[in-house]
Amino acid sequence: MFRRSTSGLTVLAHSFGILSLILLLFWLLHYRGGLNLESDISERIFNVHPFMMFFGLIFLSGEGMMAYKTIAAEKPVQKFIHMLLHLIAICMGIIGIHAVLKFHNKENIEDFYSLHSWVGIATFSIFLLQWLVGFVLFMFPKASPGTRARALPWHICGGRALLYMAISSALTGLMEKATLLGDKYHSNQARTINFLGLSILLFGIFVDFSLVFARYV
Amino acid sequence: MFRRSTSGLTVLAHSFGILSLILLLFWLLHYRGGLNLESDISERIFNVHPFMMFFGLIFLSGEGMMAYKTIAAEKPVQKFIHMLLHLIAICMGIIGIHAVLKFHNKENIEDFYSLHSWVGIATFSIFLLQWLVGFVLFMFPKASPGTRARALPWHICGGRALLYMAISSALTGLMEKATLLGDKYHSNQARTINFLGLSILLFGIFVDFSLVFARYV
Repeated sequence: MFRRSTSGLTVLAHSFGILSLILLLFWLLHYRGGLNLESDISERIFNVHPFMMFFGLIFLSGEGMMAYKTIAAEKPVQKFIHMLLHLIAICMGIIGIHAVLKFHNKENIEDFYSLHSWVGIATFSIFLLQWLVGFVLFMFPKASPGTRARALPWHICGGRALLYMAISSALTGLMEKATLLGDKYHSNQARTINFLGLSILLFGIFVDFSLVFARYV
Repeated sequence: MFRRSTSGLTVLAHSFGILSLILLLFWLLHYRGGLNLESDISERIFNVHPFMMFFGLIFLSGEGMMAYKTIAAEKPVQKFIHMLLHLIAICMGIIGIHAVLKFHNKENIEDFYSLHSWVGIATFSIFLLQWLVGFVLFMFPKASPGTRARALPWHICGGRALLYMAISSALTGLMEKATLLGDKYHSNQARTINFLGLSILLFGIFVDFSLVFARYV
């Protein structure tokens, strides 16, 4: 199903995506007690948040952006997978936001006060809008070829900006958690968080690069 | 000197750049006691850091990226301004990094342990490399037209990735400072930091958009 002739940039993107996933799971399972939305331990409820947000809105979304290049199938199939991966991302995003609000509720922490939450909620709202507009214009009911041609560069550019916004959200979230470690910031856990942040950033950069060089060069 | 026919996206980019600058100065002057590299108060030495990093590596750098579109002059003049603004950015970056190291030294804080510092130092190093390679290829001694044509998309894409990296650095830095406010996170200062972060992000997105739609649409 996957193209054999994937470029080096695409391979690098996949690699940093999978590395990020491994580092994230290692962090959450080894240092933070695991993840469980129905747990009595509120930290475990919280841990669902970073997993869902990264896996949906960064990893699946980035893979969805590359689908036209990496999935060896007809254009309509690629388009369907592109749409579907972003729809799954939205569902995971809703679960992830629910998780952090449930955690806040349990711990009596105020919602939406931090820079992380502001950037995150802006990203998620525009992501939703981008998906809806994309669906209406490119899938159903589908706009005229002229309108689609005019809208496509905005859809592509908006998608890339959203990926970088999602990465900014992730990095501010990791930064917040790491700063709250206090003295423990000089620990292996902190270094895991730092490597995770860098790996997520590199995933985004290589997704960006692999798309640009697929299209314009 | 400036083009009259700047597009709406360029105007939005300039606007969010200037808004960010105003919010940053308001934050540093009103809430953080001002900035002075030679002060006895270490906080004032620190404050030189966010100012230099934002003004150089985000604002001037973003304006430099748009120079081919906004400066009404011959191509070689635009190119010179593009190069010069990024050179000034590097100089300001060096002063900014010096400021935070001086602050750490005075306060006995370890260097380069946080995610912010890792992302920041990676960004600055690649920025320097990008400038050097750009200078050699496009200014002096200048490569052959074929090499330049092959290198240009990498230079453009790398530049955009670096802008988003610089913005990620800024946002993690702001997030770190805001988290260290502790209980004071629910204050006007915190909201100023949040608005500043969003404004910096929007500056980057509109610089990105204005360049893509200048080039490809």
